[in-house]
Amino acid sequence: MLYLNEAQTSSLVDENRALAAARRAFIDHGKVFPVSRAFGAREGERFTMKSGATPDTVGVKIGSYWPGNENRGLPRHGSTIVLLDPETGRVSAVVEAAAANAYRTAAAEALAVETLSRPDSTTLAVIGTGHQAFYEACAVVLVRPIKQILVAGRDSAKATTLTNRLANHLHLPVDAVPVRTAVESADLISTATTAHEPLFEASWVRPGTHISAMGSDAPGKQELPPKLLESATLFCDNSEQTRSLGEFEHAPADALITSLGKVLRSEAQGRTSADQITVFDSSGFALQDLALARALIAAHTEQQKLTATA
Amino acid sequence: MLYLNEAQTSSLVDENRALAAARRAFIDHGKVFPVSRAFGAREGERFTMKSGATPDTVGVKIGSYWPGNENRGLPRHGSTIVLLDPETGRVSAVVEAAAANAYRTAAAEALAVETLSRPDSTTLAVIGTGHQAFYEACAVVLVRPIKQILVAGRDSAKATTLTNRLANHLHLPVDAVPVRTAVESADLISTATTAHEPLFEASWVRPGTHISAMGSDAPGKQELPPKLLESATLFCDNSEQTRSLGEFEHAPADALITSLGKVLRSEAQGRTSADQITVFDSSGFALQDLALARALIAAHTEQQKLTATA
Repeated sequence: MLYLNEAQTSSLVDENRALAAARRAFIDHGKVFPVSRAFGAREGERFTMKSGATPDTVGVKIGSYWPGNENRGLPRHGSTIVLLDPETGRVSAVVEAAAANAYRTAAAEALAVETLSRPDSTTLAVIGTGHQAFYEACAVVLVRPIKQILVAGRDSAKATTLTNRLANHLHLPVDAVPVRTAVESADLISTATTAHEPLFEASWVRPGTHISAMGSDAPGKQELPPKLLESATLFCDNSEQTRSLGEFEHAPADALITSLGKVLRSEAQGRTSADQITVFDSSGFALQDLALARALIAAHTEQQKLTATA
Repeated sequence: MLYLNEAQTSSLVDENRALAAARRAFIDHGKVFPVSRAFGAREGERFTMKSGATPDTVGVKIGSYWPGNENRGLPRHGSTIVLLDPETGRVSAVVEAAAANAYRTAAAEALAVETLSRPDSTTLAVIGTGHQAFYEACAVVLVRPIKQILVAGRDSAKATTLTNRLANHLHLPVDAVPVRTAVESADLISTATTAHEPLFEASWVRPGTHISAMGSDAPGKQELPPKLLESATLFCDNSEQTRSLGEFEHAPADALITSLGKVLRSEAQGRTSADQITVFDSSGFALQDLALARALIAAHTEQQKLTATA
């Protein structure tokens, strides 16, 4: 059994590896199975098991959220991917990937933006100022000619911190602004919050905008105004999950929701006009995690070879 | 992260360690979460995730069934237990335990027999001649003064093989007999089959018999005659699972089903008379696997210490 620990995977992961893994996950015809939710002994401690299979990759991602970790100086989220040998069902690899998980989630947005947004999108609005928002912005910058980033969040201190961090990292103009200003100015909107109610009003969104709703991943969560979902064109990462635990829990019952994988496989249309509003909902599905684990293992193997040769 | 491979755990496991782990699992007040079912790419390949938590142990058992393994000379069943640190939610140990899993399942029967059967039970009927049946018989012999074992199965060649194997291992009289003879002569009946219909008739069971139904662990499986479940006193390993994927899917809707843990914790009565028929249904629950993993880790640690001292 191969084991990659957190220190190894956090040094191996980068935006490009994560994007290539996401592309594979979305294009592959794979199966995912019902998400299993479990809980630790103390209030708020929880973990989920997301499993999936393609002909050449089978496994499960165990994602944990332990709120007390903050007091220990540890991230609250953990992520471990267990791969099974598709030939025998036996465990073949265990890949700890808490830091890499942020890249994996952001890569799904980059893929959606690359596939669904106007190629001339230059202004990105980031709503939410938590850990994940930084990675989302960095991933989008890889795939569109972003000239300006607008950051909006309830906590102005956190908004300032994220603004400075993005400006330093990306060497782009980044400003903290009210959410309405951000939404009204954006070509691309990225929401990465834990919200349980809409973050803005539908009327603020300009024609031609692409929105990636990255936050909703459990029943009851909500980031977007339902009115927007009535008129926009809707895309999701996974058709089974989006209505049960994703943003489109709040979409009209008869809304057409197209999976991004179908668009990437040319089985369905993406954006068809420049003034269309497109919405992508990411709830996160196991095939992303399995592809990420494989990419990290491949990078590790490559590194080992180089070390052996040197 | 601690990793114990299959070779290590198969040399560490024995009936007594498994029984101690089972006792702990049944007595502890722990939580188990819905079983998640998943599938490999090819027909018949499947894996399940069973998760659970106590204040000091959190984790998930990944049990796999890959029918094609038989052609590779490998066991079809695999089992890997992933433990999370209860303080942080991070993966703390990965324990491969395919061979140990047979001891773990048999230990639940031994615990039920020890708790629910007449202390003077001397004749054991084993129905089913597969891999698991051997371990069930060996575990029962630890807890009751067995003088005779009767083996019954559809495949007479397999029945003969199991009969010889048990006789050699246990140094007891073991005979292959028709299922009716086995049931009518038994103080204890152990069923370990993949049956989807009753294996015998209710009228064949003598007063005072204890039956352990070890086979049913998925919807639709069935080993016992429903009529028996109307008059016998029913016990299960896990109240949440027994009606959805265990033998008591076929029990009367108003039947009282007592968990073995409650009896062990003196919160409920077990057998109350010598002529009562008791039935124990095992569907297998995560706390057994977590306790087994901890027992194997403790045995490994002890062994390491001895090696270091020597």
